[in-house]
Parts: sequence; structure tokens; C-alpha cells
Amino acid sequence: MKILLVGASGTLGRAIAERLAPKHQILAAGRSSADYPVDITDDASVEALFARTGKLDAIVSAAGVLHFGPLPEMRPEQFAIGLNDKLLGQVRLALLGQHHLNDGGSITLTSGIVADEPIRAGANASAVNRALEGFVQGAACELQRGLRINVVSPTLLTESLEAYGDFFPGFGTVTAAQAALAYQRSVEGVQSGRVYKVW
Amino acid sequence: MKILLVGASGTLGRAIAERLAPKHQILAAGRSSADYPVDITDDASVEALFARTGKLDAIVSAAGVLHFGPLPEMRPEQFAIGLNDKLLGQVRLALLGQHHLNDGGSITLTSGIVADEPIRAGANASAVNRALEGFVQGAACELQRGLRINVVSPTLLTESLEAYGDFFPGFGTVTAAQAALAYQRSVEGVQSGRVYKVW
Ligand SMILES: NC(=O)c1ccc[n+]([C@@H]2O[C@H](COP(=O)([O-])OP(=O)(O)OC[C@H]3O[C@@H](n4cnc5c(N)ncnc54)[C@H](OP(=O)(O)O)[C@@H]3O)[C@@H](O)[C@H]2O)c1
Ligand SMILES: NC(=O)c1ccc[n+]([C@@H]2O[C@H](COP(=O)([O-])OP(=O)(O)OC[C@H]3O[C@@H](n4cnc5c(N)ncnc54)[C@H](OP(=O)(O)O)[C@@H]3O)[C@@H](O)[C@H]2O)c1
Repeated sequence: MKILLVGASGTLGRAIAERLAPKHQILAAGRSSADYPVDITDDASVEALFARTGKLDAIVSAAGVLHFGPLPEMRPEQFAIGLNDKLLGQVRLALLGQHHLNDGGSITLTSGIVADEPIRAGANASAVNRALEGFVQGAACELQRGLRINVVSPTLLTESLEAYGDFFPGFGTVTAAQAALAYQRSVEGVQSGRVYKVW
Repeated sequence: MKILLVGASGTLGRAIAERLAPKHQILAAGRSSADYPVDITDDASVEALFARTGKLDAIVSAAGVLHFGPLPEMRPEQFAIGLNDKLLGQVRLALLGQHHLNDGGSITLTSGIVADEPIRAGANASAVNRALEGFVQGAACELQRGLRINVVSPTLLTESLEAYGDFFPGFGTVTAAQAALAYQRSVEGVQSGRVYKVW
């Protein structure tokens, strides 16, 4: 398959690329990608990306920024960061991308465990991740031409333990390689509207 | 209690006002309210509202606009309507409002059954309603001074059957008065981080 992977240079993205590369053609996209540069917060940038890729069999996103910060100090414009980047950015990839997929193609987005398990400073993450899961379950019912859509919700990655571990006391981790299996299940499998929880 | 009710002139809001008025002082807010005008999509407008109300014991929101439309035609800027209005508007009331509540006060927001049960043309509603529930469950863990926060998720209201019934085939309805009971439970009760499903 010809697979667009947005966020390919990230912790999670690199593991997904490694998992899918042996059997598929991977187009590695991201803000700083040389071949497939894209900013998912911008319609024109995403449309330019699809013009460059041509028709695809799968779109995978492991990108998106959230706001982390204590609720008593949180401002609406900070909450909007996650809405405009991780949420609307990935939704934009899906809404615009549906028209660039071959029949039977798939879209796979990324949420995260904070959807189900709140953490300190994580109100924006809980909202955004839960929204992505709602979007995917709604969109799955309306996609045309046999297109599928799923979302992967990983727990904290082992590779990110040092950076974010203090926010996840007592949470187990999985390696990015373990999380990458769920993306393979979504891309090569048959389900739609699924939240693959990896924890 | 002194209760701010945003969306007081709406189908749901009128029933909430009727339910709470016998025991409480209700400040009825909305875009077209004479006494407490507010546009929840605007920080300055919401801050002006709280300056006018003074300290409160409860904030109840039954306001917020969503985008309904078929997924194959949906544009990112249409999806953003629900994010900026029903989602960020209600989150704004909560984030700014937490500082205007007396100790032990409460915040009650509104989601809807499409969070759990997707409908045709409802991908934005599924995302926004689910996000509100994630926000409330995250925020409940971080509120200070004994403040509580909950969200009410009603099914289609009997009063809205004629307007929206075609989008909800085979869904049961509840009257706005039945849904209003959940707001009373949230305001006068003891729980926090709850999604009160009314269907
Ligand atoms: N790490 C974890 O423990 C963990 C756990 C659960 C969920 N997640 C979620 O998984 C996703 C990836 O996390 P990660 O830790 O792998 O992040 P990361 O290492 O920071 O990588 C992020 C990737 O996304 C790209 N990117 C960021 N903003 C972008 C934009 N606006 N447009 C296009 N590309 C953009 C980055 O490339 P450029 O810098 O070149 O743009 C990079 O390739 C995030 O949504 C995160 O919330 C992570
Ligand atoms: N009706 C249903 O069957 C149903 C079912 C489940 C969930 N819900 C949810 O319940 C909420 C209320 O629904 P409804 O049917 O009662 O709506 P409605 O009759 O249209 O009333 C909406 C109310 O919100 C106010 N409002 C709208 N936008 C506002 C803004 N930007 N700032 C401040 N106030 C604003 C309106 O007053 P002004 O016009 O004066 O601004 C009005 O009082 C919505 O979030 C809806 O999604 C409704």
C-alpha cells in the first residue's frame, strides 16, 4: 500500500514507519520533512500535501500538540491550542484526506490514555483525545467507498518516560514499537470506528 | 443559591429555570438576554458577565452551537464551528467562572446523546459532546476550594422532535422538564466529574 504518515519523525511516528516499511511504501510527512512538508493546522498546506502525494491507500497521523497546564491557571486561548492543533489538525487530515484515498482505504489517527484516565494538568488532553474518539466513531458511519477510520490510544510510551513520567504516576508504559502494532492492525485490518487502546 | 444560567431562553434552558427557580435565585443569561447579555465565544463578554453577576454558587450552561452536515462535504472550518461555540464556549465559562464561584460551588455543562450514539451528519456533535465529557472528568480532579463540575447528556428532547426528529430515527425522547432534573441533581447534589445521561 501507499501510506502517508504524518508525524513520521516523532517518537511514535518513527516506530510506525519501522513497522509498516517492510510491506508498504511510506511517505514520511511533518513540518520539517524535506519530501512531504506539511503543517496540519493549515488547510492550504494539507491540500498542497495531497496534491504532492497523489492517491493514497492509507493516511496515518501520529502528530499533534496539546496544552498541558494546571486548571486554576488555564486560559481559554491555551485550551484552544489542543483544539486547533491535535484535534482540528487531525480532523483536517481526515476531512480533506477522504477525497484522496483509493476505495477501501483507511485513516488512522492518534488520541491517548488521558482520554480515559485524567492526569494533573491534563484537562485539555482529556478533552482533545476524547473528541478524536467521538469524531472517529461518528465519521466511521458516514465514510463512502468502503473507507475506514480508526484511532489509536496509547498509554505513556517507554521512550517518553523521562520527559513526561512525572505526570503519569503509577501508569504502565508500552514501547513505541508495541504501540505501532495497533497502527498496523488499523491499516491492514478490516475494522472501522475502533479505538485501539494500547495499555 | 445564586445560580447563573446561560442559555436560559432556550428549549432546555427554560425548563432548567423552571425547575430551579422555586428554591434559588436565577440569573438568566444569553446573547439576547436584557439583564445578563453574554456571548460565550468571547472572553471579554464572559468576563463582563461575571463582573455583573458578582460571586455565584453555581454556573449552569445549556448553550452552544454545533455543525451538522454530511461528512463527505464537511470542511475543517465547519467542524471548527462546534469547537469554538459549544465546546470552547462552555469550557470558557468553566475556566473563567471557577474564579467567580463561592467555595463549594458547582459548574454544570451540557453535552448530548450523540457523544455515545453517532447519527448521520453528526461527526462534529460526536466530537464536541465527547470532548465536553473528557474536559469535565479531567477538570473535576483539579478544581480547588471544593468546587464541583458535571455535564448533562440528554437524548433528543420531546420538544425538539419536530425540528430534529429525522436525524434521530428510533431514538427515544425525554421532555425538557425530565432533563432539567439532572441539572438539579448536579447543582444540589454532591458528585463531581459525572456525566448524567438522560435517556
Ligand atoms: N509520547 C507519548 O508518550 C504519547 C503517548 C500517547 C499519545 N501520544 C500522542 O502521539 C502523538 C505523537 O507523539 P510523539 O511523542 O511521537 O510526538 P513527537 O515526538 O513530538 O513527534 C511529533 C511529530 O509530529 C510532527 N508534527 C507536530 N506538529 C505538527 C504539525 N502542526 N503539522 C505536521 N506535523 C506536525 C512532528 O514533526 P515536525 O517537528 O517536523 O513537525 C513530529 O514528527 C501526539 O499526538 C501525542 O499526543 C504520545
Ligand atoms: N434540543 C435538544 O433536543 C437537545 C438534546 C441534547 C442536547 N442538547 C444541547 O442542549 C443545548 C441547548 O439546546 P436547546 O435545544 O435548548 O437550544 P436553543 O433552544 O437553541 O437555545 C440555546 C440557548 O443558548 C443561548 N445561546 C446560543 N448561543 C450562545 C452564545 N454564543 N452565547 C450565549 N448564549 C448562547 C440562546 O440564547 P440567545 O439566542 O439569546 O443567545 C438560547 O438561550 C445545546 O448545547 C444542545 O446541543 C439539545
